[in-house]
Amino acid sequence: MSDTIKYLLDEGQIPKTWYNIQADLPKPAPAVLHPGTHQPIGPSDLAPLFPMELIMQEVSTEREIDIPEPVRQVYRQWRPSPLYRARRLEAVLKTPAKIYYKYEGVSPSGSHKPNTAIPQAFYNREAGVKRLVTETGAGQWGSSLAFAGCVFDLAVQVFMVRVSYNQKPYRRALMETYGATCIASPSDQTQSGRAILAQRADHPGSLGIAISEAVEIAAQRDDTKYALGSVLNHVLMHQTIIGQEAMIQMEMAGDFPDVIVGCTGGGSNFAGIVFPFLGAQLRGGRKVRIVAVEPAACPSLTRGQYAYDFGDTAHLTPLTKMHTLGSTFTPPGFHAGGLRYHGMAPLVSHLLELGLIEATAYHQIACFDAGVQFARAEGIVPAPEANHAVRGAINEAIRCREEGKSQTILFNLCGHGHFDMQAYIDYFSGNLKDIKYDEAELAMALAGLPSMKEAA
Amino acid sequence: MSDTIKYLLDEGQIPKTWYNIQADLPKPAPAVLHPGTHQPIGPSDLAPLFPMELIMQEVSTEREIDIPEPVRQVYRQWRPSPLYRARRLEAVLKTPAKIYYKYEGVSPSGSHKPNTAIPQAFYNREAGVKRLVTETGAGQWGSSLAFAGCVFDLAVQVFMVRVSYNQKPYRRALMETYGATCIASPSDQTQSGRAILAQRADHPGSLGIAISEAVEIAAQRDDTKYALGSVLNHVLMHQTIIGQEAMIQMEMAGDFPDVIVGCTGGGSNFAGIVFPFLGAQLRGGRKVRIVAVEPAACPSLTRGQYAYDFGDTAHLTPLTKMHTLGSTFTPPGFHAGGLRYHGMAPLVSHLLELGLIEATAYHQIACFDAGVQFARAEGIVPAPEANHAVRGAINEAIRCREEGKSQTILFNLCGHGHFDMQAYIDYFSGNLKDIKYDEAELAMALAGLPSMKEAA
Repeated sequence: MSDTIKYLLDEGQIPKTWYNIQADLPKPAPAVLHPGTHQPIGPSDLAPLFPMELIMQEVSTEREIDIPEPVRQVYRQWRPSPLYRARRLEAVLKTPAKIYYKYEGVSPSGSHKPNTAIPQAFYNREAGVKRLVTETGAGQWGSSLAFAGCVFDLAVQVFMVRVSYNQKPYRRALMETYGATCIASPSDQTQSGRAILAQRADHPGSLGIAISEAVEIAAQRDDTKYALGSVLNHVLMHQTIIGQEAMIQMEMAGDFPDVIVGCTGGGSNFAGIVFPFLGAQLRGGRKVRIVAVEPAACPSLTRGQYAYDFGDTAHLTPLTKMHTLGSTFTPPGFHAGGLRYHGMAPLVSHLLELGLIEATAYHQIACFDAGVQFARAEGIVPAPEANHAVRGAINEAIRCREEGKSQTILFNLCGHGHFDMQAYIDYFSGNLKDIKYDEAELAMALAGLPSMKEAA
Repeated sequence: MSDTIKYLLDEGQIPKTWYNIQADLPKPAPAVLHPGTHQPIGPSDLAPLFPMELIMQEVSTEREIDIPEPVRQVYRQWRPSPLYRARRLEAVLKTPAKIYYKYEGVSPSGSHKPNTAIPQAFYNREAGVKRLVTETGAGQWGSSLAFAGCVFDLAVQVFMVRVSYNQKPYRRALMETYGATCIASPSDQTQSGRAILAQRADHPGSLGIAISEAVEIAAQRDDTKYALGSVLNHVLMHQTIIGQEAMIQMEMAGDFPDVIVGCTGGGSNFAGIVFPFLGAQLRGGRKVRIVAVEPAACPSLTRGQYAYDFGDTAHLTPLTKMHTLGSTFTPPGFHAGGLRYHGMAPLVSHLLELGLIEATAYHQIACFDAGVQFARAEGIVPAPEANHAVRGAINEAIRCREEGKSQTILFNLCGHGHFDMQAYIDYFSGNLKDIKYDEAELAMALAGLPSMKEAA
């Protein structure tokens, strides 16, 4: 029997800095624009929402940014996370490929999200903030910020996309166990929520709507800030500890990836595993193929336009250039709620435009097929979001088998599915369907992209 | 902020042997008796149910039994498990005590159970067995054996106590994700199940009934064996890797426990953490206070009789001397389904009789209070079973505060509660009640203990 191999680092090998890919880009990403003036925004424009330390990280072009010691101290509870070689899965697939996965489900909330929730809570606490407001899709982010709120003694309020709020009561219970308040979005607690409910009382919600609600609340009170779980530069940067650790672990294994696979919703776990490898390549290191896997029901990278758009539905955020399905697009209610976002991280979009990464999209049943195959081989049940990365990695391994190539595949298993077992229940009972978005709605959402005629 | 400290071992420090406390007992545990003759049974009596390697481990008095390399190889996926010092919890409790916990929730199925599921599956596979049948309460054991079945290519059939089957659909889904078959017990698939259903069609089930069903099925087919997740000597022995690792980790921390706390249902996670420390004490080492915490709704150690009894309801098993509430006793349907067993491991019972351990019982709301306090401090949400150990440890820490004593407390956090969040939902919504067992039923069950007049 060929068995799983674990590559584990010492605590001392937790990275001391985050890696900022903005230092190594061949061409800087397009500026973030003010929605009124269409001129580049400055740090002060973001000050109502974020503490200054995070804003400076957002705009920094320094290659390395120090991780504060109190943050590393909390990371130590579950980091460094293990890198596994999936030899049982390789055997099942009869592939000559070597499959490695970095496992982020070892964190207290079961996903990669605490990697950024902890520093975000830390910097807010340092700035005297008392309360954080955020949105969440499947609940991975909301539960992680709730955990971080416990650690740094901050109240946490979470607007949870309604379809996930109903599908995933266990995630909600996790947030409440951590002492956070969880509200189904759209809600009647904000203007933007009430406006949506007036149009459609049973609206399933979307990350774009939940962001509007959270931003609206955060802007109202001085002691309250907003926190975002993906998309923004500083959030992606906090996740680079994943890839930095993985680089050392791949070296321990005496190997180097030919291809890296990650799933993309807002782009943060993907960036986390990919950016350190890509940065090394941009600085003259070995080339690696990079594949972003997104849900076919919400395909921003593969079907969206690369255009300036709002990050939220009520248009309270600045304009960023990204692959977008349009901020009014409501993705259908498939199970990977963490991937139901109309846009993509500007940095990830920029890399796709530069031809440095590829993107592909799969429907959910194919992803659950892969997740169950993975669980039976490796013992870990992936989150529905992570199943997209598993599908992508398995397809690469099958390609290797067909081509007779012994390539090295690395993917990020960004979280476990313990709180999402209803999705597996639906899958086994045949109630899980591949959901197609509404083409007419997409066309309308794309037609409604902000006109940038006045842009700088 | 005082933060959690993690003590982690290298893979090479996974124990190479299991520790068998039978080698160090001041007085051997009473013999296991044949239910017909009341004479001590021999290995051949157990052969229809278990492979010979496990039977020999059951009766062995060797101090150390080698862990086969293929078993250690699978253990490496998640072992050695971390030992934490709960400094955030200590700060919340304002206690001078030091609180350490060994965390077994890092296994693929989220509990300590794979520590024995993996070797049991291995020895069965080596003996040519094709199929394992078992019972499960909350589903920790069933899902762990299902995982082990994946690793060693065995079909797994699980009789799940009906009240848990209904309360915990996520655990059931986990077993099915691993490819196992899960049946609510009592079922119509066995004589013993049908007999119970004939008396009471809506019977909530019990571990004793589910054991009867599994044993009945296993005895029918040559290629099928039975597996038990607790109670038996070899099962407890497999769990001693927990305590062996913890001894090295406490040494790393420069500390030694004054008191060790574990929760008890059948006794296996408790034995796992306790036996190596107790063995060292019995061989002349430092004395440690040991506290077993059981549910007040199923209090075998604190309210049961120390008597010969059957391990199952239909009286298919041999007779063992243990603390028992009577094999016909049906514990009420509280949330810690893994602790709903009428008896206690004979070795744990024997140690209580010898005065080497203490026992105490708590109701479930007090346990969930402790679990939520722990989750908010340490970030890990415990399983309902583990909440009993958390309650016990916190009470010891409070005692230390009241007495002004800086003692060292160690407890076993045997699993996470990710699949059990319905219990937390009930707790927060006020739907969780402290359930008392029926005193008349207990008296009747105790009166029905087998008469041992003919005993040897």
